[in-house]
Amino acid sequence: MTIKDIAKVCGVSVSTVSRVLNKHPDVSETVRRRVLQEVETQGYIPNNSARDLVRSRSDAIGVVVRGTGNLFFAEMLKTIGREIDRAGYTMVPRFIDSDADEVKAGAILEREKKLQGLIFLGGRFDYTPAELTLIGVPYVCCSYTNCFGSLEEKDYSSVSIDDHLTAYRATEHLIRCGHRRIAAVVPSCSDRSISELRYDGFRSALRDYGIAFDSNLLVETGGCFEMPETYEGVCRLLRCGVDFTALLTLSDTTAMAAMKALQDHGRSVPQDCSVIAIDGLNVSEYANPTLTTMVQPVEEMGRESVRILLDTMENGAPTEHLRLEAKLRAGQSVCDL
Amino acid sequence: MTIKDIAKVCGVSVSTVSRVLNKHPDVSETVRRRVLQEVETQGYIPNNSARDLVRSRSDAIGVVVRGTGNLFFAEMLKTIGREIDRAGYTMVPRFIDSDADEVKAGAILEREKKLQGLIFLGGRFDYTPAELTLIGVPYVCCSYTNCFGSLEEKDYSSVSIDDHLTAYRATEHLIRCGHRRIAAVVPSCSDRSISELRYDGFRSALRDYGIAFDSNLLVETGGCFEMPETYEGVCRLLRCGVDFTALLTLSDTTAMAAMKALQDHGRSVPQDCSVIAIDGLNVSEYANPTLTTMVQPVEEMGRESVRILLDTMENGAPTEHLRLEAKLRAGQSVCDL
Repeated sequence: MTIKDIAKVCGVSVSTVSRVLNKHPDVSETVRRRVLQEVETQGYIPNNSARDLVRSRSDAIGVVVRGTGNLFFAEMLKTIGREIDRAGYTMVPRFIDSDADEVKAGAILEREKKLQGLIFLGGRFDYTPAELTLIGVPYVCCSYTNCFGSLEEKDYSSVSIDDHLTAYRATEHLIRCGHRRIAAVVPSCSDRSISELRYDGFRSALRDYGIAFDSNLLVETGGCFEMPETYEGVCRLLRCGVDFTALLTLSDTTAMAAMKALQDHGRSVPQDCSVIAIDGLNVSEYANPTLTTMVQPVEEMGRESVRILLDTMENGAPTEHLRLEAKLRAGQSVCDL
Repeated sequence: MTIKDIAKVCGVSVSTVSRVLNKHPDVSETVRRRVLQEVETQGYIPNNSARDLVRSRSDAIGVVVRGTGNLFFAEMLKTIGREIDRAGYTMVPRFIDSDADEVKAGAILEREKKLQGLIFLGGRFDYTPAELTLIGVPYVCCSYTNCFGSLEEKDYSSVSIDDHLTAYRATEHLIRCGHRRIAAVVPSCSDRSISELRYDGFRSALRDYGIAFDSNLLVETGGCFEMPETYEGVCRLLRCGVDFTALLTLSDTTAMAAMKALQDHGRSVPQDCSVIAIDGLNVSEYANPTLTTMVQPVEEMGRESVRILLDTMENGAPTEHLRLEAKLRAGQSVCDL
């Protein structure tokens, strides 16, 4: 069954069938329905190879996913994949470790797959223009910016939440519930990264509310947002015997590991210690207790990253820098002191 | 910096550099080290375009992921992506809903992307040969088989656990802990699927141990392994006031939703009700309590799926049907009665 057969059965031209399949508006509703019904009946699958061949280059858009265990990125990848599919391109993902070099991985992917564009799902915040000369196609930094780096805003696009503000709001929520002794779990990734901004937001909130920072309440963990390291870190904090009534973690999965450590040491959440996080994963709604967390707009972030990239690729549109808002989802893991 | 520059600096031929980069064995260790050092120093990135052009067809391997919220598949996709990358192919994933038609999605993907091969991550167990004529490339059913269908074994490959046996073993574990009143949460997906096999395993274990099946203890949920539906289903069971001391769910995330429902109704896990599941996600090690679950060998399943597919694609090797073993990971969610 080819497009010619469909045309013959429907008594219309091949180009009319093609217009229907490609959703062109200049087809009458009657003809459109007739063609689509025949397509359905015959189980015809449009062959886009011809269209692909017309394109002078490949239709590949690379997505470098940094942090293979990152559930937030796993959720986002589905949205990005769907949006890239809808636009008629091919998503080519590459998964790298959370401490790997995403720029190099992106550059290799670009050459191997002749990419048209690139989305970095996670990365460092301190790129230099020299480093980024490796990348020869438009790219979007998704979930991060270049605020510690020296790229010019016109040379890249970014979609993220305001990490500093989001951690500030999370901390503020704990403070407004009466907490003063607030611990924080901060991954000690070797590069200047998302942890640093969120940690600064935490410190700013303490300062603005006149709460002295106690370095004994800072849990630095190895790795980047790993659950085992977080669990161990909170266990160390508890063994120290230092007093605290609330705890901030920088991601949902590390919050679950932190709650586990507290509970394994006989501390009830939130009665003995409140816990708040940043991400808003589906699974953390079913944590015990339900996690209170700042929800990143994962759908919107993915959708906007693809939109901006396509706009630059196809229309040469200027770069964009979108800051989206994370909103508090009140669960059961925070209570008034 | 091109391969010619590297050759010139090292004082060797271009083909020698090429042999080093492509890991051919016929290069002396001294030359190999010298070339790799120069590649590292110069930050040279091999350009595989030429190799790609030599290939007569595309290098795309499609992966249809059925169930966009499935964390087990999210973990597996990383392994599959890494293995496909290592073999020099391009992974092209497509995410579809858990009730969507994966064969049709695969067929469309095959035509759009000129696939060389296809991995179905999740699907129906009852394919007919007629349906599968849509697929014109070698394919592997990953995490399922065709045991309710009529495909010939030589026409497809599969990698999965023994779903019946795994559910049997999980149920047996509860029975050996003294449980007799065991509830089960079973998604009522419209097609004959993984739920049916696992449910049968549950029923077989009850039968073998002389426990009469009580249909009041069966929780049928809408959707396929969704957390909200599971939560609601267990709440309904609890509202009925029917007595049970243990509960089997068919996946880790639904187990977390079930534990949440129990706890929200004032039932402690495992003191008031034991819970066991199938999957072995990383995150369920940090559930509260730690989930007791049958761990699927996710790494091995992904690796073997790619190996079998490549072997068929490249060497015309016969199809394979691998049954891997799921192993009990004892957590804290099951206790002796």
